[in-house]
Amino acid sequence: MSIFKAAIIGGGNIADTNHIPALKQLAEQVELVAVCSRDLSKARTLADKHGIAHAFADTATLYRECAPDIVVICTPNYLHHPQTMEALAHNCHVFCEKPPALTAQDAREMAKLATEKGRVLAYNFQLRQTSEWELLMRCKADGLLGDIYHIKAHFLRRRGIPGWGYFTNKAMQGGGALMDLGVHVLDLALCALDYPTPDQVLGNTYDFIGKAGGKGLMGDWNPATFEVDDAATAYLSFPNKASIMLSASFALNTQQDKDRNLELFGSKGGVKLFPFSLHTELAGELADVQFPYLEEVDIQLKNTAAFLDACHGKPSTVCTAEQGAILQEIVERIYQSNR
Amino acid sequence: MSIFKAAIIGGGNIADTNHIPALKQLAEQVELVAVCSRDLSKARTLADKHGIAHAFADTATLYRECAPDIVVICTPNYLHHPQTMEALAHNCHVFCEKPPALTAQDAREMAKLATEKGRVLAYNFQLRQTSEWELLMRCKADGLLGDIYHIKAHFLRRRGIPGWGYFTNKAMQGGGALMDLGVHVLDLALCALDYPTPDQVLGNTYDFIGKAGGKGLMGDWNPATFEVDDAATAYLSFPNKASIMLSASFALNTQQDKDRNLELFGSKGGVKLFPFSLHTELAGELADVQFPYLEEVDIQLKNTAAFLDACHGKPSTVCTAEQGAILQEIVERIYQSNR
Amino acid sequence: MSIFKAAIIGGGNIADTNHIPALKQLAEQVELVAVCSRDLSKARTLADKHGIAHAFADTATLYRECAPDIVVICTPNYLHHPQTMEALAHNCHVFCEKPPALTAQDAREMAKLATEKGRVLAYNFQLRQTSEWELLMRCKADGLLGDIYHIKAHFLRRRGIPGWGYFTNKAMQGGGALMDLGVHVLDLALCALDYPTPDQVLGNTYDFIGKAGGKGLMGDWNPATFEVDDAATAYLSFPNKASIMLSASFALNTQQDKDRNLELFGSKGGVKLFPFSLHTELAGELADVQFPYLEEVDIQLKNTAAFLDACHGKPSTVCTAEQGAILQEIVERIYQSNR
Amino acid sequence: MSIFKAAIIGGGNIADTNHIPALKQLAEQVELVAVCSRDLSKARTLADKHGIAHAFADTATLYRECAPDIVVICTPNYLHHPQTMEALAHNCHVFCEKPPALTAQDAREMAKLATEKGRVLAYNFQLRQTSEWELLMRCKADGLLGDIYHIKAHFLRRRGIPGWGYFTNKAMQGGGALMDLGVHVLDLALCALDYPTPDQVLGNTYDFIGKAGGKGLMGDWNPATFEVDDAATAYLSFPNKASIMLSASFALNTQQDKDRNLELFGSKGGVKLFPFSLHTELAGELADVQFPYLEEVDIQLKNTAAFLDACHGKPSTVCTAEQGAILQEIVERIYQSNR
Amino acid sequence: MSIFKAAIIGGGNIADTNHIPALKQLAEQVELVAVCSRDLSKARTLADKHGIAHAFADTATLYRECAPDIVVICTPNYLHHPQTMEALAHNCHVFCEKPPALTAQDAREMAKLATEKGRVLAYNFQLRQTSEWELLMRCKADGLLGDIYHIKAHFLRRRGIPGWGYFTNKAMQGGGALMDLGVHVLDLALCALDYPTPDQVLGNTYDFIGKAGGKGLMGDWNPATFEVDDAATAYLSFPNKASIMLSASFALNTQQDKDRNLELFGSKGGVKLFPFSLHTELAGELADVQFPYLEEVDIQLKNTAAFLDACHGKPSTVCTAEQGAILQEIVERIYQSNR
Amino acid sequence: MSIFKAAIIGGGNIADTNHIPALKQLAEQVELVAVCSRDLSKARTLADKHGIAHAFADTATLYRECAPDIVVICTPNYLHHPQTMEALAHNCHVFCEKPPALTAQDAREMAKLATEKGRVLAYNFQLRQTSEWELLMRCKADGLLGDIYHIKAHFLRRRGIPGWGYFTNKAMQGGGALMDLGVHVLDLALCALDYPTPDQVLGNTYDFIGKAGGKGLMGDWNPATFEVDDAATAYLSFPNKASIMLSASFALNTQQDKDRNLELFGSKGGVKLFPFSLHTELAGELADVQFPYLEEVDIQLKNTAAFLDACHGKPSTVCTAEQGAILQEIVERIYQSNR
Repeated sequence: MSIFKAAIIGGGNIADTNHIPALKQLAEQVELVAVCSRDLSKARTLADKHGIAHAFADTATLYRECAPDIVVICTPNYLHHPQTMEALAHNCHVFCEKPPALTAQDAREMAKLATEKGRVLAYNFQLRQTSEWELLMRCKADGLLGDIYHIKAHFLRRRGIPGWGYFTNKAMQGGGALMDLGVHVLDLALCALDYPTPDQVLGNTYDFIGKAGGKGLMGDWNPATFEVDDAATAYLSFPNKASIMLSASFALNTQQDKDRNLELFGSKGGVKLFPFSLHTELAGELADVQFPYLEEVDIQLKNTAAFLDACHGKPSTVCTAEQGAILQEIVERIYQSNR
Repeated sequence: MSIFKAAIIGGGNIADTNHIPALKQLAEQVELVAVCSRDLSKARTLADKHGIAHAFADTATLYRECAPDIVVICTPNYLHHPQTMEALAHNCHVFCEKPPALTAQDAREMAKLATEKGRVLAYNFQLRQTSEWELLMRCKADGLLGDIYHIKAHFLRRRGIPGWGYFTNKAMQGGGALMDLGVHVLDLALCALDYPTPDQVLGNTYDFIGKAGGKGLMGDWNPATFEVDDAATAYLSFPNKASIMLSASFALNTQQDKDRNLELFGSKGGVKLFPFSLHTELAGELADVQFPYLEEVDIQLKNTAAFLDACHGKPSTVCTAEQGAILQEIVERIYQSNR
Repeated sequence: MSIFKAAIIGGGNIADTNHIPALKQLAEQVELVAVCSRDLSKARTLADKHGIAHAFADTATLYRECAPDIVVICTPNYLHHPQTMEALAHNCHVFCEKPPALTAQDAREMAKLATEKGRVLAYNFQLRQTSEWELLMRCKADGLLGDIYHIKAHFLRRRGIPGWGYFTNKAMQGGGALMDLGVHVLDLALCALDYPTPDQVLGNTYDFIGKAGGKGLMGDWNPATFEVDDAATAYLSFPNKASIMLSASFALNTQQDKDRNLELFGSKGGVKLFPFSLHTELAGELADVQFPYLEEVDIQLKNTAAFLDACHGKPSTVCTAEQGAILQEIVERIYQSNR
Repeated sequence: MSIFKAAIIGGGNIADTNHIPALKQLAEQVELVAVCSRDLSKARTLADKHGIAHAFADTATLYRECAPDIVVICTPNYLHHPQTMEALAHNCHVFCEKPPALTAQDAREMAKLATEKGRVLAYNFQLRQTSEWELLMRCKADGLLGDIYHIKAHFLRRRGIPGWGYFTNKAMQGGGALMDLGVHVLDLALCALDYPTPDQVLGNTYDFIGKAGGKGLMGDWNPATFEVDDAATAYLSFPNKASIMLSASFALNTQQDKDRNLELFGSKGGVKLFPFSLHTELAGELADVQFPYLEEVDIQLKNTAAFLDACHGKPSTVCTAEQGAILQEIVERIYQSNR
Repeated sequence: MSIFKAAIIGGGNIADTNHIPALKQLAEQVELVAVCSRDLSKARTLADKHGIAHAFADTATLYRECAPDIVVICTPNYLHHPQTMEALAHNCHVFCEKPPALTAQDAREMAKLATEKGRVLAYNFQLRQTSEWELLMRCKADGLLGDIYHIKAHFLRRRGIPGWGYFTNKAMQGGGALMDLGVHVLDLALCALDYPTPDQVLGNTYDFIGKAGGKGLMGDWNPATFEVDDAATAYLSFPNKASIMLSASFALNTQQDKDRNLELFGSKGGVKLFPFSLHTELAGELADVQFPYLEEVDIQLKNTAAFLDACHGKPSTVCTAEQGAILQEIVERIYQSNR
Repeated sequence: MSIFKAAIIGGGNIADTNHIPALKQLAEQVELVAVCSRDLSKARTLADKHGIAHAFADTATLYRECAPDIVVICTPNYLHHPQTMEALAHNCHVFCEKPPALTAQDAREMAKLATEKGRVLAYNFQLRQTSEWELLMRCKADGLLGDIYHIKAHFLRRRGIPGWGYFTNKAMQGGGALMDLGVHVLDLALCALDYPTPDQVLGNTYDFIGKAGGKGLMGDWNPATFEVDDAATAYLSFPNKASIMLSASFALNTQQDKDRNLELFGSKGGVKLFPFSLHTELAGELADVQFPYLEEVDIQLKNTAAFLDACHGKPSTVCTAEQGAILQEIVERIYQSNR
């Protein structure tokens, strides 16, 4: 098996702490040859820190000098589309950070080009790799849940408006809590239903707290420049009558600091994901099942490995380009709902 | 203050354990003169047990012989409309069990006739009288919550399909979990928003468990004759962008036996209703407020007293005929959604 | 179905609070016609309290005047054998309190006569009727446990030497904690293994605290006349290599006031009985299963009904004469062990 | 006080993390001069890591070149006997890992030779050095327990079959859970009774889970080559009628991952060891005593120091050669029981 | 043993629910012959309810017609002194409710007259009879505490201003929280020190909440007529340098609704009274001792029995006239402190 | 803003771990130029470890060679007075460890000279900088507490007699638990009342455990040389009738190892400090408020910064020279009380 040559685009935290360490642990399959950031000093610092040969300030130079097989895109959301299109144009497999893009149209274009080029385009929804989600999928496959017909999914922070980066800038990020947090649990919920497209979507977004200001638990933010949703709620209804209730928040007057969970209700059993519990009937009685020894795993490492499986043409659990386009369209329909 | 003469229509459990005891405790305002049930022996038994003078098998005789000022309707849902119309026609104030009717059209007719007759028509949503709800309304009035923009409301049972009465009969009850349980928390959620009409409603209903059968925690039920929703979920969106997420179930594969609660999110504070906790900022810090000494109150007694307040022309917290019509229309739109 | 005529022998607490109420609830199958106690006033009091027609001071009169179909024996242990033999001789079905007898030889004789007479002889080990034990037997039948190969069974009290009756009198009771408490959990453990006879038995009995005296939690006892075991421990080994560890105490320096439980270890799953939890593998992970909605049942009522099932020739879960003889032999071998 | 010269035989984990660090902390009494392992590279690595002068591949060279005063044996069980005999023959004090040997006969020979040579032979049962066991021995000495007459001792793992080394190899280890885990708690139980020899032993061993395979919590194991007991249970009865119930498992369908404890029942008080609680009478009332400030200690350091005390001829709490022989005989009798 | 004739003076709740039931349970020693209340209808009602022969409206008639041996005084505080003096003048033993009197001078006169008359005068501090206090006194006697040198005693309510009776009337009750609640725990603290007289007393009383009004948990009160202390705190210093910190409140902004406890610190051990825990050294380690099986007892029955013991000349644990005078003087010094 | 030159006097732990690290983090305002200790090697070691230029053995040389602007005094208590006087004489600002001095007279002299010299003298009571205390002062300022009228303050250790340094030497430390621990919570309590001088003080000190010896949880101590209070209790009464109950201990037979807390009772609200909870009325109900997200802060860093604020003439929360003198006088009055 030959080894892929990979390059990282984007010099921020997600590259430093997630993607680079994962790729380095998978050195038998992939060699990380370059980091590219418009701020060359950032690229250089990362490259030095992790022992990567090259650092570039522009992607043109990157493609010319390194000709990577794989590109990992870790830049702000508004760059996902142009950089992915460029990478595919250079016949690279692309592993792109979530969310896929700013618009559904962009995400569909990205998927189309990947298909045309015969290259893998995948998105980094790494919660799919948690032990809990793997167990959920095994329970589903074993028939322990029956038909799943309703899912409650939420990713809520009480006062977790990120006080750094571009998280409150609408033009660069495309949205707030829904775009940054909601997509993670939405991706899982869609997986549980085999990634259908909803026939109806209804939702609302809010910015009361973001625009009013207050105590921050993830740094301070500037209410004067707050442009995105601090909370979003939505209901998705599918052709088979299954439904999803979704909520996400950067800021909400709720008790817990952080609360991320899914509840999945099936005809034979229901599951609460974190911590994993299964609620069903066993031996003629209502039974609650706990799995006390689920392993904590390195979900980024596993998701990067899943992406590489896809590049090798193997079965993979990574989020595909087509799934990413479906998800992005749902996000867009939520933002456009109830205008 | 003269004393009202009241009659009970319906000889079931809700008359016996809720309405009759409440009316008897309010003897300074109301005299309970008759019980009417198509099963005369039931009416007679109740009358004897509670020391009520008359028992009737038909309402015509009741109106002719007793001429009540007040009628309390405790019959199956499909009788709410005709019996209320008849009572109003006899110039009675009417205290009707929930839900208001089988259809929105019926509920609107009932409200219209009450207005024309200048009589009070009210529905028995007694959760409004809990100490928790009273405190919620006081917090709202004191501005502790700011603008309420999202509410999660649920009334879920794991395996609580009622194994008696007509609860699984669609023609007589009009529906299942949503009609029987969901309306209680929907009424509260609407109160918190000052009872607006939603501009959009999206929902789904299910009957997987009800039709499959299984272990029952409120008696056994017959899956072969199960006709109603065992679970319902919905999203309501209002003109001011506020939203409500609603779920109700007789049967759902969830952990808790019974779980009834509301979470209300406002711009200044949020509340979880049972047990009551307020989440806000105080003295510049995020604060959680508990109220450990809320009284347990007799909510039926208080709601019946509130109905009598309305009959006396005083301010009242009871559910009005107009509110009942709004609520019934929402229920109908949920049942018709996603068909 | 004709109705059995039943008589109670013994006028103590177990007759008053267990057997008589159970028989009266089963009035469709059995009529309780007499109470017999050597202390006639006790018999008379019980008969009056429970509306039973006859009270006798000797069994001869009982059999002559009433000719019962069923006799329930609620006397001290040393009378179980002679009274059962007499009842069988009168062609009665016999429901005898535990333990079966003072010796294995007696228990075997009782079983032999029952067989010869074609009558039911059963012992009142009512823990078999708990919801937990029923569920255990269902789990076993469904193969959830695989082969059960080791059982820990204990019935321990910290300072529960009964301060009344004959519990510390060796001649009348035959033993102490093992005879009174240990037999209950031993019976269950044997059931789980399909009631085999052990090939080896090793045990010890103690009386340190009983003879020293001290604080009592079930009344005071007299250390000077304490003749029985205050604690007993034993190990049973069976031909198929399965094993049982048994302990019972009236008095032991342990933390809990009362601690009665069984742990059953099988090749596929293990169970702790109170509260019921199942420990196994599910979907490839170690799983702990709780059954939070097991019903509390009237175990005496169910065990009496099981005895009547046996009298009717139906399948029954009641402890048979043969099982009682096996159990009594084990108890005897424990008492004789390590002498 | 002159300083002992010590050598380590065996290059595995127990040498690296237990014995070598302990000996180095006791540098005032002992100098660690050599490590010997059949795999010389292992010996060399350990020696370099810990700054030890010599590394050898065979013991003959070790004795010839270093002439140690003390030998610490950290090899697989089947080597304990030959290597101890050799060390004693070279007039060394020997500190041998547990269990003493593969057979009782071997352990007796080892003890006999130590006596003849006038050298210390001791076994590394380091749980004797826990604060809890020290406190138990002080409570016993102060008379707080009276006569100890029954002990429950267990060392259970749910799925802890070691997935490395030789733990499932019968020829090299002599047994499984009993040999590896059971001996620890058996040693403590025997200490509490002053190390008597039981007059009767009855037990059973099992291998259902080990041979069937399944989820492992201490690495994976190969069921096809699993030769030892995955669980063992036994009952020991002593001449003074005291008794011990023992259980040990690598794999058992129980709730806890790891559960190691002793309960000791005496005529005046009882103790549960982890966490330490004393159950007794005080001031005329039943009392439970907690000791919330017991120190966590380095039990290997303390046990090595105790061994050195013995070498210096001082009183010591280390497990003696004679105790080791008694223990090994009991283990053998359990394995031979119920064959 | 002849039987005492007893009379109750005072027709309130304490007579009805405490003293009369206790006296009736002690019918072998005492016959309750009369109830006396200025409100004759109250006296009559009580007498009828409890089957007492006589009811009187004035004490003169009572003494003339009944000539009681024992008088139990259950009237408001300001009547304790005159009614006790009158009863002693009639050669009665007197069992008087707490506090002894309004002033120290009154309490001393009462004690003096009892001595002169050779009659028992005792006060009803019934917390002395709790199992916890009995155990404390046994621990003290057994030397488990050594010298007790500091005691924290408190009896605090958060919003427990009694909304009935005369509790907020200074002239009739003499004070508030200190007089009604503080005296109970002060009596216990003094007992633990063998009832010494303090050489120094320093304290303060408050009425912020009582005079401001607010939410009540024991009924509503009228802030306009609130005349007493809603909280009191004090420090007592004794000749042997022991000290007591005392606090009592009807109303205080603290967390718990009701909090009544003592902590006693001795040179060998310390005790927290509710629930009872002993903190000391045992076997060379710091030990915490719990007594999980203390009985709940009828403390009024036991205190009344103790009073009768005193009347019979037996040793008694009841609060004596002299102790009452010491306590009353301390209360007076606290009220006069820091004026 | 020019930078202060600072010198540390005292080479112990408090200098090493508290003051030097704090000063170095504030390098923009202050340069740490010297360490002075009578043990020159200690001074040299500290200077080297922290990169400080000079080390001196006597203060005369320090002042001559370095001419510091600020002196931080970290020596045993008996040196606080002479070294502060000397530093002020050299026109230095002084940051002195607590307690201020051995006597009230000394503390007053120190304050007087500071005033005369126009220099800042402050004491290091760093608990003022906890998030909890800051929140308390904000709640007080916002009127949430109303008038504070009673404070319970304690700083208790069960067996925490420091086993090192001079803590049990009366001449060098001036006292024990009160001088070392009590002053911390006394300072806070006085702050809450705006630092008034009490009109009455009553207290006692004890040394039972210190002189008897026993188990130590902060090292061993020598009972033979134990000269100070192991426990102290006091009551302070202020002109406005407010009061403080104070207790402090190195050793006390209580349950918790360490227990440091204040409860403050005001007319509108009460606070328990650790963890912070506010008890008040809100929306007409009794409310308990928690603040779950208070930050842990570096209290020494904040207190040193507050001292520097004072040196810059800015508002500061540091303990002033005048406050120190008031506190020292109270400590002295407690020690002299009840002699």
